Amino acid sequence: MGETFVVIGGDAAGMSAASKARRDAPDLDIVAFEKGEWVSYAACGMPYFVKGDVADLDALVSITADEFVSERDIDLRTGAEVVAIDPSVRTVTVETAADRYEQPYDHLLVATGARAIEPPFPGLDLEGVFTLHRMGDAAAIDTYLDEHDLQRAAIVGGGYVGVEMAEALAARGLEVSMYEMLDRLLQPFGEPGARRVEDHLREHGVDLHLETAVEGFLGDDRVEAVDLGGDRATTDLVVVGVGVEPNVDLAEAAGVEIGPTGAIATDRYGRTNLEGVYAAGDCAEVDHAVTGEADWVPLALTANRAGRAVGQTVAGDPTPVGETAGTAIVKAFDLGIARTGLTDPTAARAAGFAPVEVDISARTRAGYYPGARPLHVHLLADGESRRLLGATLVGEEGAKRIDTVATALHAGLTVDEVERLDLAYAPPFSPVWDPVLTAAKVLAGRLDQ
Amino acid sequence: MGETFVVIGGDAAGMSAASKARRDAPDLDIVAFEKGEWVSYAACGMPYFVKGDVADLDALVSITADEFVSERDIDLRTGAEVVAIDPSVRTVTVETAADRYEQPYDHLLVATGARAIEPPFPGLDLEGVFTLHRMGDAAAIDTYLDEHDLQRAAIVGGGYVGVEMAEALAARGLEVSMYEMLDRLLQPFGEPGARRVEDHLREHGVDLHLETAVEGFLGDDRVEAVDLGGDRATTDLVVVGVGVEPNVDLAEAAGVEIGPTGAIATDRYGRTNLEGVYAAGDCAEVDHAVTGEADWVPLALTANRAGRAVGQTVAGDPTPVGETAGTAIVKAFDLGIARTGLTDPTAARAAGFAPVEVDISARTRAGYYPGARPLHVHLLADGESRRLLGATLVGEEGAKRIDTVATALHAGLTVDEVERLDLAYAPPFSPVWDPVLTAAKVLAGRLDQ
Repeated sequence: MGETFVVIGGDAAGMSAASKARRDAPDLDIVAFEKGEWVSYAACGMPYFVKGDVADLDALVSITADEFVSERDIDLRTGAEVVAIDPSVRTVTVETAADRYEQPYDHLLVATGARAIEPPFPGLDLEGVFTLHRMGDAAAIDTYLDEHDLQRAAIVGGGYVGVEMAEALAARGLEVSMYEMLDRLLQPFGEPGARRVEDHLREHGVDLHLETAVEGFLGDDRVEAVDLGGDRATTDLVVVGVGVEPNVDLAEAAGVEIGPTGAIATDRYGRTNLEGVYAAGDCAEVDHAVTGEADWVPLALTANRAGRAVGQTVAGDPTPVGETAGTAIVKAFDLGIARTGLTDPTAARAAGFAPVEVDISARTRAGYYPGARPLHVHLLADGESRRLLGATLVGEEGAKRIDTVATALHAGLTVDEVERLDLAYAPPFSPVWDPVLTAAKVLAGRLDQ
Repeated sequence: MGETFVVIGGDAAGMSAASKARRDAPDLDIVAFEKGEWVSYAACGMPYFVKGDVADLDALVSITADEFVSERDIDLRTGAEVVAIDPSVRTVTVETAADRYEQPYDHLLVATGARAIEPPFPGLDLEGVFTLHRMGDAAAIDTYLDEHDLQRAAIVGGGYVGVEMAEALAARGLEVSMYEMLDRLLQPFGEPGARRVEDHLREHGVDLHLETAVEGFLGDDRVEAVDLGGDRATTDLVVVGVGVEPNVDLAEAAGVEIGPTGAIATDRYGRTNLEGVYAAGDCAEVDHAVTGEADWVPLALTANRAGRAVGQTVAGDPTPVGETAGTAIVKAFDLGIARTGLTDPTAARAAGFAPVEVDISARTRAGYYPGARPLHVHLLADGESRRLLGATLVGEEGAKRIDTVATALHAGLTVDEVERLDLAYAPPFSPVWDPVLTAAKVLAGRLDQ
């Protein structure tokens, strides 16, 4: 059909869109620009590369740049940065090391992702101070660990990256300290779950400092200490993981509307306010399954799915990008912690609900069956409508059962409906009442009071 | 209030009802009759007792008869069989070893359970031939194994009990043969899943004979062989597990209506056609979440939940017993196999659907993460409405993810809605697209063709 689909960003959302559009519209010209060299990689796997569970960084790449070109007929150009979008004439301006040119588009996907937040810490550029967001970061940390005899590591920030890197660096033999400005780790997972992870990290020797502001890093060439204001804590390595922010500058400069979360505003098909311009992945908002409001949840599945949907839409079959429930799961040493929906009563009240919560402990298997482990379920529902709002699950096994709750959230089920779900039971797999059912039963009782 | 609630049957449904009624209605007189000695026991745990994973049969009892009396103020009478119900005067006739008497009731729950089908095999009474349904059976098999030096075991019937006992007896060091009359094992799990279990059993040395009718057992006092018509197969032990049937004789004789499945017909509150008479558990029908028709699915959670709901209803708070999706999970050596809803295209067509199915293999974790295992997902949907109808999952880990599908079935989700579920991802727990999502994606594509 001679139309051109231009994709900005060569990771999850961008390459999912390009691949799906290619399959569904063989005649479409597809040009994808990636400013770096890595495409379509699993950033989530990087801590496991540093830990040593994954031997080769290439294993995190699902499809190489060459394969996109040779096998999928996608004109993927790495080392090519889109520096401007001109929606009036439908072109983007591309810069490479050698060149600068205009590329026309009929359909454009902004999939510029997110970037690690780098607070203005003095000493952030010292040797031995890292963030972990792009593939080069993982390789750099791994090399630094290999080439130096390090004793102590400091992790700044108690989110996903911080928790996963605590495990990774402990496995590499370092004494790990962790500094979190707020009063608990893993904010999006709610308080009861976060406390259990904190206890577990401490049991694994992590020196955990909550409500502790880092002011910078000290050292001459190499980092030697974390500056804590009055105190200083000796360290040989620092990983800063204080969160990510959406890359929206390029889009915003072109007149793309930014939503209240700071990410790009889109409709249910991923369309922005500009004709022919879509946004998907870690740079874009998506509707929340529980609140119905636009939200920004930069996670891999959301990005892959939204990208794929945009590809399908561009190919002529309008497809919703789907909603997010903010479902996430993290491994912290031997624990899994998973969350979905609204897990914080304050957030639930802000969204107009009257939250009621329970926090129960059950077992993952029949009590008499070998290997049964505790599974903690924190469950929230709306006191008025009895609708389920969210949950956090924590345990050495079974945290993936969060998917039961996520499915219930998408379907808008009440606590009573969840209590009556027919879930799978056999002694090696579950008690008769799955822990999620037990929590729903207790919560339903509390709602009756 | 002076009213009396009489419960017939001291296992899951009966004791759940008695316990819930006691909590909710402290003034109610509650009398429960159990003809045997064991109450409130996990029959599902018996294979693991025989296997040796559970050291003590008492571990399978969640609450003892004494505890029901002393701690829950329930007048539980073991060794007391109800032999007649007279609904015209609201009494039951009770027989004990020493006595026979009438017991009045205001509310009556029939929770008489199911019994192992015993085909009229010649030789069924030989020493060394067992069924496995009641606690005494497990103890008898275990004792027989301890007291004799046995080489070969024959299992008749390839259902749950057969598959679990194959694992248990192999673990006890026996050579196991299995005989199934039909052309596959585990009928309710659909063909693709059943085939994988068959392969797995063979890999674990089980000598599997499908489409093989057993005609009886041969031997003088002790069993020596299985009679296969023309052939005979030497054996030292036989376990017959060809299914269960509901115990409805007592209720039927009193005029309680029996449904088309052969179990007791009930409404959504577990009420039978007789005023004040309820039925719950393995003797009663329950509505199917997908077909909406009455079905008979004798499983532990259904029984526990229905009993609990009846107890709550009797206590004055009418509570639905819930629907069944026929969700079930079984361990077969290293494999888990789980099912929910309609897993057989023929059954789906009979229920008025136009089934379309896919059978995919995915991985339980990110492909690069250690320990990732294949998970096979067989998914069915209706070609007209696109509604999800059922699934079977098979794998060394992850089969419990059937709960995602079960939840979707209860909510009546379409394949497209399932494809857009926000499920949990992190490399140690799942690929970006959970195997259930991948299957839904493939199935949605097939429905579009």
